[in-house]
Amino acid sequence: MKKFMDKDFLLTSETAKKLFAACQDEPIFDWHCHLSPKEIYENKTPADLTELWLAGDHYKWRAMRSLGISEKYITGDAPSYEKFKAWAGAMPYLIGNPLYHWTHLELQRYFGICEPLSPKTCEMIWNKSKEMIAAGGFEPRALIEKSNVVCVATTDDPADSLEYHKLIAADKSFSCKVIPAYRPDKAIAIENPTFVPWLGALSERVGRGIDTYDEMKKALCERMDFFKEMGCRASDQALAAVPYVPATEEELAAIFKKGAAGEALTEREIDAYKTDMLVFLGREYHRRGFAMEIHIGAMRNNNTAMFKKLGPDTGFDSIDDLPSARGLSRILDALAVTEQLPKTILFTLNPIMNYMLGSMLGNFQNDDAPCKVQFGSGWWFNDNIDGMNAQLRAFMNLGAVSKFVGMITDSRSFLSYPRHEYFRRILCELIGELVENGEYPYDEETLFEIVRGVSFRNARDYFGL
Amino acid sequence: MKKFMDKDFLLTSETAKKLFAACQDEPIFDWHCHLSPKEIYENKTPADLTELWLAGDHYKWRAMRSLGISEKYITGDAPSYEKFKAWAGAMPYLIGNPLYHWTHLELQRYFGICEPLSPKTCEMIWNKSKEMIAAGGFEPRALIEKSNVVCVATTDDPADSLEYHKLIAADKSFSCKVIPAYRPDKAIAIENPTFVPWLGALSERVGRGIDTYDEMKKALCERMDFFKEMGCRASDQALAAVPYVPATEEELAAIFKKGAAGEALTEREIDAYKTDMLVFLGREYHRRGFAMEIHIGAMRNNNTAMFKKLGPDTGFDSIDDLPSARGLSRILDALAVTEQLPKTILFTLNPIMNYMLGSMLGNFQNDDAPCKVQFGSGWWFNDNIDGMNAQLRAFMNLGAVSKFVGMITDSRSFLSYPRHEYFRRILCELIGELVENGEYPYDEETLFEIVRGVSFRNARDYFGL
Amino acid sequence: MKKFMDKDFLLTSETAKKLFAACQDEPIFDWHCHLSPKEIYENKTPADLTELWLAGDHYKWRAMRSLGISEKYITGDAPSYEKFKAWAGAMPYLIGNPLYHWTHLELQRYFGICEPLSPKTCEMIWNKSKEMIAAGGFEPRALIEKSNVVCVATTDDPADSLEYHKLIAADKSFSCKVIPAYRPDKAIAIENPTFVPWLGALSERVGRGIDTYDEMKKALCERMDFFKEMGCRASDQALAAVPYVPATEEELAAIFKKGAAGEALTEREIDAYKTDMLVFLGREYHRRGFAMEIHIGAMRNNNTAMFKKLGPDTGFDSIDDLPSARGLSRILDALAVTEQLPKTILFTLNPIMNYMLGSMLGNFQNDDAPCKVQFGSGWWFNDNIDGMNAQLRAFMNLGAVSKFVGMITDSRSFLSYPRHEYFRRILCELIGELVENGEYPYDEETLFEIVRGVSFRNARDYFGL
Repeated sequence: MKKFMDKDFLLTSETAKKLFAACQDEPIFDWHCHLSPKEIYENKTPADLTELWLAGDHYKWRAMRSLGISEKYITGDAPSYEKFKAWAGAMPYLIGNPLYHWTHLELQRYFGICEPLSPKTCEMIWNKSKEMIAAGGFEPRALIEKSNVVCVATTDDPADSLEYHKLIAADKSFSCKVIPAYRPDKAIAIENPTFVPWLGALSERVGRGIDTYDEMKKALCERMDFFKEMGCRASDQALAAVPYVPATEEELAAIFKKGAAGEALTEREIDAYKTDMLVFLGREYHRRGFAMEIHIGAMRNNNTAMFKKLGPDTGFDSIDDLPSARGLSRILDALAVTEQLPKTILFTLNPIMNYMLGSMLGNFQNDDAPCKVQFGSGWWFNDNIDGMNAQLRAFMNLGAVSKFVGMITDSRSFLSYPRHEYFRRILCELIGELVENGEYPYDEETLFEIVRGVSFRNARDYFGL
Repeated sequence: MKKFMDKDFLLTSETAKKLFAACQDEPIFDWHCHLSPKEIYENKTPADLTELWLAGDHYKWRAMRSLGISEKYITGDAPSYEKFKAWAGAMPYLIGNPLYHWTHLELQRYFGICEPLSPKTCEMIWNKSKEMIAAGGFEPRALIEKSNVVCVATTDDPADSLEYHKLIAADKSFSCKVIPAYRPDKAIAIENPTFVPWLGALSERVGRGIDTYDEMKKALCERMDFFKEMGCRASDQALAAVPYVPATEEELAAIFKKGAAGEALTEREIDAYKTDMLVFLGREYHRRGFAMEIHIGAMRNNNTAMFKKLGPDTGFDSIDDLPSARGLSRILDALAVTEQLPKTILFTLNPIMNYMLGSMLGNFQNDDAPCKVQFGSGWWFNDNIDGMNAQLRAFMNLGAVSKFVGMITDSRSFLSYPRHEYFRRILCELIGELVENGEYPYDEETLFEIVRGVSFRNARDYFGL
Repeated sequence: MKKFMDKDFLLTSETAKKLFAACQDEPIFDWHCHLSPKEIYENKTPADLTELWLAGDHYKWRAMRSLGISEKYITGDAPSYEKFKAWAGAMPYLIGNPLYHWTHLELQRYFGICEPLSPKTCEMIWNKSKEMIAAGGFEPRALIEKSNVVCVATTDDPADSLEYHKLIAADKSFSCKVIPAYRPDKAIAIENPTFVPWLGALSERVGRGIDTYDEMKKALCERMDFFKEMGCRASDQALAAVPYVPATEEELAAIFKKGAAGEALTEREIDAYKTDMLVFLGREYHRRGFAMEIHIGAMRNNNTAMFKKLGPDTGFDSIDDLPSARGLSRILDALAVTEQLPKTILFTLNPIMNYMLGSMLGNFQNDDAPCKVQFGSGWWFNDNIDGMNAQLRAFMNLGAVSKFVGMITDSRSFLSYPRHEYFRRILCELIGELVENGEYPYDEETLFEIVRGVSFRNARDYFGL
């Protein structure tokens, strides 16, 4: 029996251990996350582990609800320690869930606590961690620097002022670069009640009225330019499924008018608008050297009652299952045919798309970059050992995983950097297995290059850090 | 090389063996099966293994057809021993098929026969088993009791009289509880030729005419009340894919009229009717404390010629592949939004839905029960080592498998209880692997609680046995 | 650590090794490939490894593009050795890709070179292989015979003259049978610009005008008869997804008229035409004893710019994800209901269809043949260890893999026969694992029969070689 989560966690062969030793100290470039630039700037000392763990993490909330824990101890008004106790009580029952590993990696790496969290250790861990937090070193910036993170790309709306990015950049005492990523989801979601208010915010940001589709596009470009000035290298768009419905300029102008007036749109109109937006955005990203991330397959806010109580991103999202191959192929081709396809990273929330997506990459590769079209890492519901292995194996079988830009935390938590370590262990175990199994020669130089590349260097080069 | 199917079958680590030892004697609550209450009541002595194995088991029929065996030896008029010989001859060629393991588990557990079935052992096994059967102990009730089954939930139509359930309940000599489960599939399948005759049967059962949709709903409720009196705790509905098409009461009344008159309905009408029925049923189950099972993804009666010869459930069903995420989300939300979502168990026949479903659970969990929304076990075409592992791993990664209500036989055969043992071995091997691999601490108390819970106790508590 | 790709490559247990020893010398019947009968007839000596490997292999082209290599070194005008160097440079970065194994199996089996290909060994391997090729034994026929291939079925259009098949058959010095397979894809793809010219070619081939749907069908039948004379035993049809839209004869006649005139068709018209064609073809195959292969799930020519430059089959195809269960079920049933379902082999490019397809087989099995409806091997993007294992495991779980007709190269390259060896190793490792794990008894006679059957004998018997 291997020891519980010791230094060789997830590494079973000598080769895997050597590979991990070779890449574990690579820095982290967290090129897609949901950290708050405001929180990074303000750099407040957290009160306790409840604040660090449970204040905003919808993964944990969801897991607690799964165990039948009352909302009072999740997002409710229970005292801080009561919430922590509820989480400690849940822990042993989350066997096999990635939260089990994330929690213990965080306890080990940031607090030096190696005991498993459970009702038995709850009080000890609460007290010890509270003491350590009070002693300092658990502020956002300290956690980021302690985690060897050299660059963080946050996720920002085009209408965002990026004022905290400016403030952080101005403060030379912080070693980690904090750059924005351009996420025009609200511009794409014309069918959503958020569209009209968002358009107002964009209008306000650019300081003029936006009455036509062209004016909106112009405003979006202006914001892209500003994001670029602020160091932006990537954009992100999320879609439940990828549409492809071409339409004329007149039709699109009319659809925009309706949307901007808050009128209901047909499914065809919505898809036509999204198709055009994606192609428009892709071209503009290409022009500016932004990589284009596409996240497919999230079906959001499924629980209406809880959405009304708690809002979005509170643990009520799940996986959609609509086909997307044709739409995605047509969108990417529409960009490639005029040589305006930007570097592109395709993520899927539904693992059934792994082979569809993995094979899609190959349709659009060229010598712009090694693996110009990338297969995004196992994400959200796939951010676990099985999901990451499935993505890595599909990538290997269908393309060149050696040029993979690797892991991201996709997280709202400053404690989530051990997920990069988790990923590197899984990567090294998998590659180690190929070598141990006689499927690839033990060529240390190349193997080290590959695992270091996937850990950090490929992303650095791909995004031009 | 491990010995063929010995006491450590499927268990490769010491931890797995300890876990299995801890749960193997838990009783069985077979909360979803297709056993015949009439057969349980009548309790006839079977003639031989052909009757026990081949008289009604469409899994075996299908496997025999796959090997090119003539229908004569499957459902035809070949003599009993000839059919057995055909099965024995098929056996070695079913390598890797769960029937290979089920057959040998049944031979081992009920007959003490450890030799593999093959043309070489055919005659010996026939003779020995025939002798044993004649000596008694192979009647339905004896098999159930010998298998440590404390409760069986059969699957029953709302129009069913449940007369055999009454008779069994009245007979205090039988230690196993036999309760009905409410399965209104024929009420849901308005497009099916079975709808009109079924409506007639329901009308007859409630003793009055059913001319409107409301009257049908009232009759269904009346039957639910009666089922509840008879101990019912669960309902079941099967759908190829889950629709969501809201409609007005007038539209629904009109659709019902057409359906009840045997007129053809449009696809939209069918889906609108099903949507309403599912929400109606869910609410009524919630009111009565019935759990709601939903089985998604079976495409039935694909072979028209054989359907005409043999009828339904004869081995000509397969897996559908239509998307269901959106329909399912909307149905469950329609129930949750008024706080009328019953305990719900989602089963999929298509394993590509594992992650979609596993993530759906989390949208609707609350403190009504630990894991109020459950992910049903690997079922039918997934009722094998790979299918059960895939379901368990998805459940683990996405939720709290420790609160899983576990295995069911879903069977028509009185010899199928070793499938619970099969499942427990797979479960213990999987959890044992996590521990051996250092992914979870060896905390015997919690581990035993978990495997015993999944084996029996979670289901007992969930259904309130 | 196992040695790199030695004699026990992919075989980890004693049983696996014994099984492989028992089947490795079985001949090869490559019943589906894309070899050129012209090239087999002409039997030219290749210039070098660049010609053998890179002149026409879109798998390698695609992999090179994935690594950011310029098209100049792929399909461009770079000198032969420069292209080889580009491939050698790509090799180490294709870790985990099946091309890594295929390349080295080919170097080992045909050239006796056991060093891994890389920039370091590039020159040595180039020189050694060039010398060997010049010395002879690398002509198409020599490679085929050296690979123990007893029969090759090429893939041929109904309008093809089969003149090279005739010439090869007349040359008694060549020990391998070369037979055609009937592939009416251009007849099925009425929506494609290729339809009208193809119709012209068919008309020319049969020596008369084709003005009606019936006339086209008659011409197709005539060609089938001729193919049969030339030894044809199988047909092949490729579909992105399987439609089922019944239509009247009048409608179909009108759809054909429009298609033959190059007019645009609606989606419904296209699907109605394809539905009818598939049923028509199936019946005619049944009449002639042709097996019917159906390849589902390829989405072709995704990159318009590269299609214009390089044409089809140049590495720009990927996996479609539309549902197909219902269409496929209805097509097969339409054939089965009149007892005109030919032997049928279902292939999927999208592995998410494995369980859908694997369960579809069972709907239509009968005593025409063992496993009359077959599940085609892991193909194209699934032609790797994971893909083949997934297909084999689904086949096992759902049917009788022991009667599987096994591997095909599906290749354009004369060096691709080690893929049969690769498959046999994967098969033996998998079956060996069942035995080692106590899931199946060590019954050497049956096990050898099974692995030899899947390697060669099942296909021989199924196709009546």
